[in-house]
Amino acid sequence: MVATIQLYDLELLGLPKTVFSCNTLKTRIALNLKGLPFETKWLDFATVKEVIPTLTKQNPELKRPTVPVIVDSISGQDKVIQDSYDIAVYLEKQYPNTPSLFHNNPGVHRFFQQYCESVLLLPLFKLVMFIIHKQCGPDVLQDWWREDRERMFGCSLDVFAGNRDDNILAVKNALLPIIKVLKEFPFMTGEQVGWADVVLAADFKMMAALDPVTFESVFLSGFETPADDVLIQNWWKRMSVYI
Amino acid sequence: MVATIQLYDLELLGLPKTVFSCNTLKTRIALNLKGLPFETKWLDFATVKEVIPTLTKQNPELKRPTVPVIVDSISGQDKVIQDSYDIAVYLEKQYPNTPSLFHNNPGVHRFFQQYCESVLLLPLFKLVMFIIHKQCGPDVLQDWWREDRERMFGCSLDVFAGNRDDNILAVKNALLPIIKVLKEFPFMTGEQVGWADVVLAADFKMMAALDPVTFESVFLSGFETPADDVLIQNWWKRMSVYI
Repeated sequence: MVATIQLYDLELLGLPKTVFSCNTLKTRIALNLKGLPFETKWLDFATVKEVIPTLTKQNPELKRPTVPVIVDSISGQDKVIQDSYDIAVYLEKQYPNTPSLFHNNPGVHRFFQQYCESVLLLPLFKLVMFIIHKQCGPDVLQDWWREDRERMFGCSLDVFAGNRDDNILAVKNALLPIIKVLKEFPFMTGEQVGWADVVLAADFKMMAALDPVTFESVFLSGFETPADDVLIQNWWKRMSVYI
Repeated sequence: MVATIQLYDLELLGLPKTVFSCNTLKTRIALNLKGLPFETKWLDFATVKEVIPTLTKQNPELKRPTVPVIVDSISGQDKVIQDSYDIAVYLEKQYPNTPSLFHNNPGVHRFFQQYCESVLLLPLFKLVMFIIHKQCGPDVLQDWWREDRERMFGCSLDVFAGNRDDNILAVKNALLPIIKVLKEFPFMTGEQVGWADVVLAADFKMMAALDPVTFESVFLSGFETPADDVLIQNWWKRMSVYI
């Protein structure tokens, strides 16, 4: 299959070509799961503000210039889709003969995504936030990143980050009900892989990319029993073919 | 279709023929969703202890005598299945030409069930616990129920029940991420109904059966906006055909 899809992804200038964003990762993993070839267009925290509003024809004052964005050059037209969930819905409809993400059960997959965003991703982000800040580019970009996020969070980055041990415990606790499902099924979706697995794997990969040591100790080991550790390691191995 | 299935359900002596158990409700709703006719065998908190171990041939010392149990008299054999989830798995396999519960996505439905059990059902049960206690039968049965539950919870019923306002708030909060999904889809499963909806409807019906006034004010109204109230009321109407 010829690659008709361009994926706009974000890189840290201090970690070039390292995929670290859980949002662009969701699209990347979904494309791989569907076996759709794509070409990556790399942006950084400086260029994303210029390129994305041009692509999406949005007023940059009104909406944040976020990735992922895909441009699908299909039937002589460029289809531009923003946001990992909207891209997944588009891919599901546009390429019905590729492996399904939602298996006609999008509601319950969305519920799981919501759980991950509020319960798992928040403490995860707090654990890696200063790594992103430090690697995002030269001082001027770091200063912008800090100011932009502090305005968004309504407090200083230090206050927002909180206590590292609390964040580690919150991640561990967030993974407990996930481990219970993996005791019964090879994937979060069930016998087969789906959007729930894509969302979870994106969060795992974000941590693995930015802080592999913490990833090993918090995401892959130290659960209630060694059998639980193996369970989540095996799921991670199963997902690694899509990442 | 001739009814080959007998469903063992639990009734409160103070509320005869009122289905109140969220566990037997899950089976009842699942059977209705699949369009499988069944006959109800009513037990109470006294007879359940005698009948269920005989049916399941379990040692009553080792395992709690719980409902639901179904007996499916199919092909001259009686198949006895206990536990609402195991019954759902059985029905899905035994009657593949009826509407599906899991749509091949059991993992993500199980995750939702786990969420309901730990986050929604616990405060719900605390709200209705004394109603069950008071209506379960004569004094001797009420005393047994109290002792049995206090042993299970490791504290007095009063301590376990906690504060009513806290429980109401916990139920409201548990419903917030559910309302978010219902903003996008008619059912928790998505465009179609599934096990996630069965689990949630069983919890709703438990509250509606035992305390209809609290049900109206906590489960069906008083959310962030009137539109949210309508959203959950409409889902409840959609589910009522299966209850």
